[in-house]
Amino acid sequence: MPLSSYRAFEPALAFAAESTEKAMDRLLPRGEEGEARLFDAMRYSSLGGGKRLRAFFVLAGATLFKVGAMPALRTASAIEFVHAYSLIHDDLPAMDDDDLRRGKPSCHRQFGEATAILAGDALQALAFEVLAHEATHGDPAVRTTLVTELARAAGAHGMVGGQMLDLLAETQGAPMSIGAITRLQRLKTGALISFSCTAGAILGKAAEPMRTALAAYAHDLGLAFQIVDDLLDVEGDAAALGKATNKDAAAGKATFVSILGIERARAQASLLAQQAATHLEPLGPAADLLKQAAKFVVKRRA
Amino acid sequence: MPLSSYRAFEPALAFAAESTEKAMDRLLPRGEEGEARLFDAMRYSSLGGGKRLRAFFVLAGATLFKVGAMPALRTASAIEFVHAYSLIHDDLPAMDDDDLRRGKPSCHRQFGEATAILAGDALQALAFEVLAHEATHGDPAVRTTLVTELARAAGAHGMVGGQMLDLLAETQGAPMSIGAITRLQRLKTGALISFSCTAGAILGKAAEPMRTALAAYAHDLGLAFQIVDDLLDVEGDAAALGKATNKDAAAGKATFVSILGIERARAQASLLAQQAATHLEPLGPAADLLKQAAKFVVKRRA
Repeated sequence: MPLSSYRAFEPALAFAAESTEKAMDRLLPRGEEGEARLFDAMRYSSLGGGKRLRAFFVLAGATLFKVGAMPALRTASAIEFVHAYSLIHDDLPAMDDDDLRRGKPSCHRQFGEATAILAGDALQALAFEVLAHEATHGDPAVRTTLVTELARAAGAHGMVGGQMLDLLAETQGAPMSIGAITRLQRLKTGALISFSCTAGAILGKAAEPMRTALAAYAHDLGLAFQIVDDLLDVEGDAAALGKATNKDAAAGKATFVSILGIERARAQASLLAQQAATHLEPLGPAADLLKQAAKFVVKRRA
Repeated sequence: MPLSSYRAFEPALAFAAESTEKAMDRLLPRGEEGEARLFDAMRYSSLGGGKRLRAFFVLAGATLFKVGAMPALRTASAIEFVHAYSLIHDDLPAMDDDDLRRGKPSCHRQFGEATAILAGDALQALAFEVLAHEATHGDPAVRTTLVTELARAAGAHGMVGGQMLDLLAETQGAPMSIGAITRLQRLKTGALISFSCTAGAILGKAAEPMRTALAAYAHDLGLAFQIVDDLLDVEGDAAALGKATNKDAAAGKATFVSILGIERARAQASLLAQQAATHLEPLGPAADLLKQAAKFVVKRRA
């Protein structure tokens, strides 16, 4: 049953997670060679967990433009590999120093720091290898666009740049403005979410207005997602989240919640999610799942 | 003056280093944003040093097939970015824990561990971004081949896999056979050197026998290069090398030298270098610089 046959968001998300997980499993290295420890660490940290929201965005976007399952699943896998690598490196002692991830010991707690660094590095390379392969799309121009967009979303002007800002915010101690926090989050999490939401349009060679609509959706939704993340850090249940809570306050970090307060932050997230959905009007009822995803993002408890 | 007008290896290497350095400088991010510290670390570790042998291989290979300067320099830069990222991560305390690199404090000594991890991550993303850009080649199929080959050379079945084997060799303590060391080195340094030597043939859409000849050259030369690296670790001058020596023996690591002894290791490196040059016979006198490079690799003192 393809994703397009789902009417309700939650089963669609579960389907996206399960099918992407299977695709990732096939794409990840396995073997008995001496370096199998590396493969094990890559599998440990990228399989068996996570909401797979990014994968859902790719698959839901792809159904809008009649993209086949294989191209969509490979692209979703590549993005999830980058997301997994970023979590491994973020959790390292020199970074956020987290012992727990998705309810399990973080990669460096399980495999040691050196293996964790290498597993992250290899997952990043794997993501680009998957996108560049002809099985991802018959047209090499589409594949180079995917590689370019992922590299930008993940690199110094995207995710890694945002992570740098986040580290500096912790160590420098100067209070951040709401504008500075917004920019940080657009880089750290927004760039990869934006690529996830527009990848289907790239694969389907969609007309520019369609891609723009999805980019606008991603823009608002990414920010709503992050505000909710901050709320969950204050209000959430560590067991349900599978990671520690109250980390931001303990680190003295300015967040949307510390600046806006809980009520205004929640109102702002709801507003952004509604606004995200309205950007999809030109796409008609075919975009219903993505509209529901916006609601889910603000209602989620983990 | 293009590289093809050089007759002698050493000025040609200097030219390749200088022109690639300029290209890298243009491709690296710079700015005054909050995350500028990340850009600074990326520049610190990738500019201003190194022999740029990999860049030379790309440029010399490219001249054989009349590839333009821009595609060759962008490809050379991408490979040097990956090489630089691997050195940053290798030097981390959790890995080889090196304080010195190219005669300067290593990246984490200069910028801190967190920034060093991120700078390596961002350099890897930048490498793929550069290759996928249309300025690297007009034909997107060529660009996807470059991305695929770099991802394989750098990933779990290439450089990172070799680095994993290297770490395990240090910690497990079981003596390695010459076959196991050879495999480790083919992954750790050989894969990226092979891609460097064949990238020009990919850019120039060279006939298969030409690409095979260059791959065979790279295969032997890569191993010769690594044997000499082991020799320099025993016999070299730390000041000239810009890094610490006698690290392998101190770590109790099996190397070509610890197994073969100095004399046999040196003889083996010379033999491999000669053999590397003979693979280039089908390419005629145009390949003279690459043949000289094989001699240089075994004679180098740093």
